[in-house]
Amino acid sequence: MIYQSTALHFDKQSCHIYVGENLLSQPDVLIPHITGHQVMIVTQDTIAEHYLKPLQALLSDYQCDVITLPQGEQYKTIEQWLKILDALIAHNHERSTTLIALGGGMIGDITGFAAACYQRGTNFIQIPTSLVAQVDAAIGGKTAVNHATGKNKMGVIYQPSCVISDVNFLKTLPEREFIAGLAEVIKYGLVCDATFFVWLEKNMSALLAKENKTLQHAIATCAALKAQVVQQDEKDLGLRHILNLGHTFGHALETANEYQVILHGEAVAIGIALATKLSAELGWLTSKDVTRILQLLAQANLVKTVFDFPSAADFIRTMRQDKKIHAGKLNLILLKSIGVAVKTSQVSEAQLMSFLENEKKRGVISE
Amino acid sequence: MIYQSTALHFDKQSCHIYVGENLLSQPDVLIPHITGHQVMIVTQDTIAEHYLKPLQALLSDYQCDVITLPQGEQYKTIEQWLKILDALIAHNHERSTTLIALGGGMIGDITGFAAACYQRGTNFIQIPTSLVAQVDAAIGGKTAVNHATGKNKMGVIYQPSCVISDVNFLKTLPEREFIAGLAEVIKYGLVCDATFFVWLEKNMSALLAKENKTLQHAIATCAALKAQVVQQDEKDLGLRHILNLGHTFGHALETANEYQVILHGEAVAIGIALATKLSAELGWLTSKDVTRILQLLAQANLVKTVFDFPSAADFIRTMRQDKKIHAGKLNLILLKSIGVAVKTSQVSEAQLMSFLENEKKRGVISE
Repeated sequence: MIYQSTALHFDKQSCHIYVGENLLSQPDVLIPHITGHQVMIVTQDTIAEHYLKPLQALLSDYQCDVITLPQGEQYKTIEQWLKILDALIAHNHERSTTLIALGGGMIGDITGFAAACYQRGTNFIQIPTSLVAQVDAAIGGKTAVNHATGKNKMGVIYQPSCVISDVNFLKTLPEREFIAGLAEVIKYGLVCDATFFVWLEKNMSALLAKENKTLQHAIATCAALKAQVVQQDEKDLGLRHILNLGHTFGHALETANEYQVILHGEAVAIGIALATKLSAELGWLTSKDVTRILQLLAQANLVKTVFDFPSAADFIRTMRQDKKIHAGKLNLILLKSIGVAVKTSQVSEAQLMSFLENEKKRGVISE
Repeated sequence: MIYQSTALHFDKQSCHIYVGENLLSQPDVLIPHITGHQVMIVTQDTIAEHYLKPLQALLSDYQCDVITLPQGEQYKTIEQWLKILDALIAHNHERSTTLIALGGGMIGDITGFAAACYQRGTNFIQIPTSLVAQVDAAIGGKTAVNHATGKNKMGVIYQPSCVISDVNFLKTLPEREFIAGLAEVIKYGLVCDATFFVWLEKNMSALLAKENKTLQHAIATCAALKAQVVQQDEKDLGLRHILNLGHTFGHALETANEYQVILHGEAVAIGIALATKLSAELGWLTSKDVTRILQLLAQANLVKTVFDFPSAADFIRTMRQDKKIHAGKLNLILLKSIGVAVKTSQVSEAQLMSFLENEKKRGVISE
């Protein structure tokens, strides 16, 4: 059942986003987006176990090959990307082939990058199986692999021809990953839709219970909001930066902690809490707004993980590496109000330093 | 001195093509196309020897790094591409950096692919130093690296912000490479401009003498013709295929011979001769046209190299691998007249086989 179908329009291409349930049992969702007679599915063992067979059954009329990558962001590398390209060549895939990413953000990023580069670009379909990927990573065409020196150093912007987000996929997702995905969901309300934020306040327990209609509304809303932003700034040159709310601080937390100690979404949640409190310090958010935001994060069981909170100096260092501080100028995404994010250079490095030192002392999620 | 400046317009981007002489001594040609404060020049020893210093002098106000790749198409690999990306990371290049390809087609292809993939796309400038690159490879945004199993298996379409073609670069080009480039020049006349073909008939000796004004007219005309075609079919989905006149047959010749035994342009010249004679067999070209074409190729000192002419069966096998024969259907670029190329599936495999067997017997360039 399709709950919502959205179309993003780019210069010469459209991307159709389907949100619903049991979408792999409906051939008319996937099949019209397959252009040639060949398909390469890129997936992971834990995902394949649940969803590979139904997908293959749907594709019985095509030459359908499968490549399984090892699990984890640490394998989002050039080596694994080359494996996909080698497999395409080994199985004689033509330029008209379709690559299908069946998995979370890591699978989507690396598969999209392979699709963009094989014979100067093949058809590409995203079937995201994690909440983060359904609401964020799978939409907008950012593809990438990591480098020893940093995340997403190589990649291109390459749009999938469709994104198929089935809420039932989330039923097999580890609970902690589901929760982490809620940070991105809350982000959309904060950044660009106050009505959605209010809806989240009312429906968080139904979301946590993975009630299908609630999940579908949340994912469809986030997908439509992201689609709006991405269509206005496909190349990530300006407006799209507002979607990084919480991510700059979040990245410093990820850098300070070992892989898997803190998940991306968990780090983003703390980052959102910090951005919220800093926005309040500037007088942009009322203390009531701050309370609502921190309460919603807490209600989603976010901001609870035990992790290393970096020193203010470490925060500043990562931000400098990320070019969020450049030639003494800060670039931060903060909140003017619930539903309105802005990019600002109004905070000085000294002000940020003292804010972060205080936060480290008092514990980030205290109100 | 700028002889001609052409602008190609794509969806969200323009590409300016400058043809002239002593263009590196004019800061107002290159500098306006550099966006950030960093530049990475990708080049080869034999080119660097002549042109690196003047280019670096022009860029003294920028962080200017240089990476030198080994010479030859056999190094257009993922490994060398990774070297460029590693160098960008090692020298802390930001997304605002500019990559400059200073060299022939191989340098342009691999540098463009690196520029497209570094941090999801940086600014990219082509300074082609070979005739093939100035009239063909540097224009249109095709980037690529080779794979052990075939040429250009990986790559993207990525437009340079400008192409700077200085005819004086051709003065240091090995004579054989210059001659090979003339095959592509003749191709443009045959494919889409009968007037230019007539001009070439009159001016071939001045071209061979590398007379500056003649070179500039030839290169500027080819660049403008390619620009017209590419603007109508950037993604190489249809119209752009006509630019492959002679290339399908040429590729079979390249495959049958060791690297450097036959140069790309030399193979294309024989391919053009074959396409010409096959077009005549279909009754599309008069015997007078055939004579004119073969004479122009001979006047350019093309079609003279000693090499292995493959058997008809080998030709057919390579064409099948190149997908020029698919499910029994042939796709050939042939000539309706001088100045008009078409893509046709009118020739049967049997007809092609007997044509190629005859050509092998009588020697390709006999009239």
